[in-house]
Order: sequence, then structure tokens, then C-alpha cells
Amino acid sequence: MAFSPLIQNLIDALRCLPGVGPKSAQRMAFHLLQRDRPGAARLADALVKAVDNVGECAECRLLTEQPICDICASPRRDRSLMCIVESPADVFALEQATDYSGVYFVLMGRLSPLDGIGPKELGLERLEARFAAGEVKEIILATNPTVEGEATAQYIAEMAHEHNVVTSRIAHGVPIGGELEYVDSGTLSHAFAGRREYR
Amino acid sequence: MAFSPLIQNLIDALRCLPGVGPKSAQRMAFHLLQRDRPGAARLADALVKAVDNVGECAECRLLTEQPICDICASPRRDRSLMCIVESPADVFALEQATDYSGVYFVLMGRLSPLDGIGPKELGLERLEARFAAGEVKEIILATNPTVEGEATAQYIAEMAHEHNVVTSRIAHGVPIGGELEYVDSGTLSHAFAGRREYR
Repeated sequence: MAFSPLIQNLIDALRCLPGVGPKSAQRMAFHLLQRDRPGAARLADALVKAVDNVGECAECRLLTEQPICDICASPRRDRSLMCIVESPADVFALEQATDYSGVYFVLMGRLSPLDGIGPKELGLERLEARFAAGEVKEIILATNPTVEGEATAQYIAEMAHEHNVVTSRIAHGVPIGGELEYVDSGTLSHAFAGRREYR
Repeated sequence: MAFSPLIQNLIDALRCLPGVGPKSAQRMAFHLLQRDRPGAARLADALVKAVDNVGECAECRLLTEQPICDICASPRRDRSLMCIVESPADVFALEQATDYSGVYFVLMGRLSPLDGIGPKELGLERLEARFAAGEVKEIILATNPTVEGEATAQYIAEMAHEHNVVTSRIAHGVPIGGELEYVDSGTLSHAFAGRREYR
């Protein structure tokens, strides 16, 4: 016996959520239909509103429903300092963890020629125009420490050097609270090579 | 810094899904907005259609968008045999695992007076009316082996006896592939007390 078409349809649609397989999708569908129909209606409404209204900030590409995001619009932000990240989630993680007071630039991905993601898809032309305009004095490269993330950082660093923008990369090493024994060798060799004077 | 209101709203709405905490809700929201807007629109549509159209089967209370579900409407099902379960998910689990050819009755819960769930909320009046009508000759109690599930099975069994309906309870014991060493003591004492002659 199969589920009735609308229930099957809902189960299939729930699979678009990351980390949701067939069993959890089924559990979610039954939960919503049996116990939380107001929640399901609210979720549908939130999805429609977000899909229709949330776009990218014209300056930094952060997800926002305004033309310019709160960070770029804030007069308290130092617009000569720019942190470059791969995704909007990275911005929120950094905002929560640090007292960074500059602006951001969200690449919405990383260079990955095999997937057809080149400099254009990442908005690097727009980034270079901002370097050329001379407002940005310093950038912090906070792309992920993956092969593509490193290549992206490298590419942007070269662009920045051409425009005499000071460039730094966030530190990579053993995470706080981690144990050397359980850290992968790539991280450990990074941490070793990037050691600092201890005073 | 906070998320923009529509994004925060979407994150909050995603929390209505079972097993989704603040971090996964955030991950889901960003995934949908960055990478799968068609999927998000499809999900919103499926939610609205399911909430608006899926109701309970008038005979067995299974979730369906028709007045009578496929099982109750099927001429190949033995209507004198009825399996009583707590939730629609149980029906699908049994349909997949067994070749049961009777009909079902879905309680949509279990007796739980503290939560205000009594015989009325479980549709037991309707169930008793069906016993009284005489069509049902035999029931299989497949409520969960929890305290409330057992109490519910007990209550329904008494109702069935009054109407001379043959009653059985699904077997409880060590699960297939399980190891005695790791099975909890309640299950083990059940399995021991419910042992069967071995031929």
C-alpha cells in the first residue's frame, strides 16, 4: 500500500531539506499532519515569504530582504576593513564569535571550475571594482580551509595585491579544546608550520 | 547582529519539525535560500495542500484526502478482522512488514488522562459502535508496549469482550537480530513469560 498522493507529495518535498532522508521525512509529515497543522501552515507561509522577498545585499551579497543589509547600512561599521566569507552562515558565525567591526563580502560559494563556478559567479568583478574604488584598505580572507576555499583565497589575495589592499588569512590550527591525538594530519601540519612566538 | 526578520521567521518556523533544533533550522533555512529556492516553494505548496486537504478516513481515522481511505474502500480487505494501532505511521509500517489483509482502526493517540486524552478523543465510541454492529469478528491490538499503550489495549479488550469479539495482542519479546545481553529487563521478562512451545 502506498501513502495517499498528497501525503507522499509532502514526504517527497520534505526531502529537499538538508539531512532529511526518507524515514525522517515520513516522520515529519505525520507529525505535522497529526499534531501540528498550525505549525505546518506557519512554515508554508514563512517559506513563501522568504523565497519571495529575501535577496542579496547589493554591496556584500548577504541574504537580506532590504536592498542593503543591516551591516553595510550601519554607520558604526568600518568600511575600510572587509572580511571575505563563503556563505551567509559564516557571517552570522563570525558576528556571534568576534567583535569584528568591519564589513563583509559574501562569495556565495567558492571557486570550483568543474561545477561551473568561476570568478563571475562569486561576484569577484564587483569585489575588484570595490578594491579599485580605493575605499577598502584591508581584507581578511575567511574562506574555508578546503582545497577550493584555499584556491579562492589565493585568487582574491592576488586581486587585492594589485590594488595595494593589505591582506590577511584567518589562522588554521588545532581547535581550542581539541586534542593533538585526534586532530587530522593536515590540520596538525598547518598548526606546526604556522606556529607563533610564545611570550 | 540578528538575522533579518524574514530569515529569522523561517528559522523559527522550521523548528516545528520534529528533531530540528536551532542549529539545524538555521542550516536548513540557509540551504533553501541559497541553493534550493524551487525546493522551498515546492515544500510550501505541498504543506498547504496537505494541511488543507488531508483529513481522517471516516471509518478507520487513517490520514487520507478521500472520505474513505484506500484500505477501507478496498473490496479485497477482510472487514471482519481489525487491527488497532496508535498512529497512521504504524499502519504503513505494518503494511510494509506483513501481508495482513484485514482493516485498521487508528486511535490517533493513546489513553492518557493527564494530557486530557480519554476514550472520546481516541474515537472509542465509534469503535464500540462498530463492535456492536457485529461486522467485526476479531481484533488485533497493536498499540505500543508502553504503559499508556498497554492501558489502551486493556480498555479496548474489555470493550471487545462485551461484544464477543475475539481479541489478540501482538507479541512482545526480544527483537529479531537483537542480543539478550543488550535487551532491557522489561522486554526480557516479557519474552520469558510469553515463551511458546518449540517444535
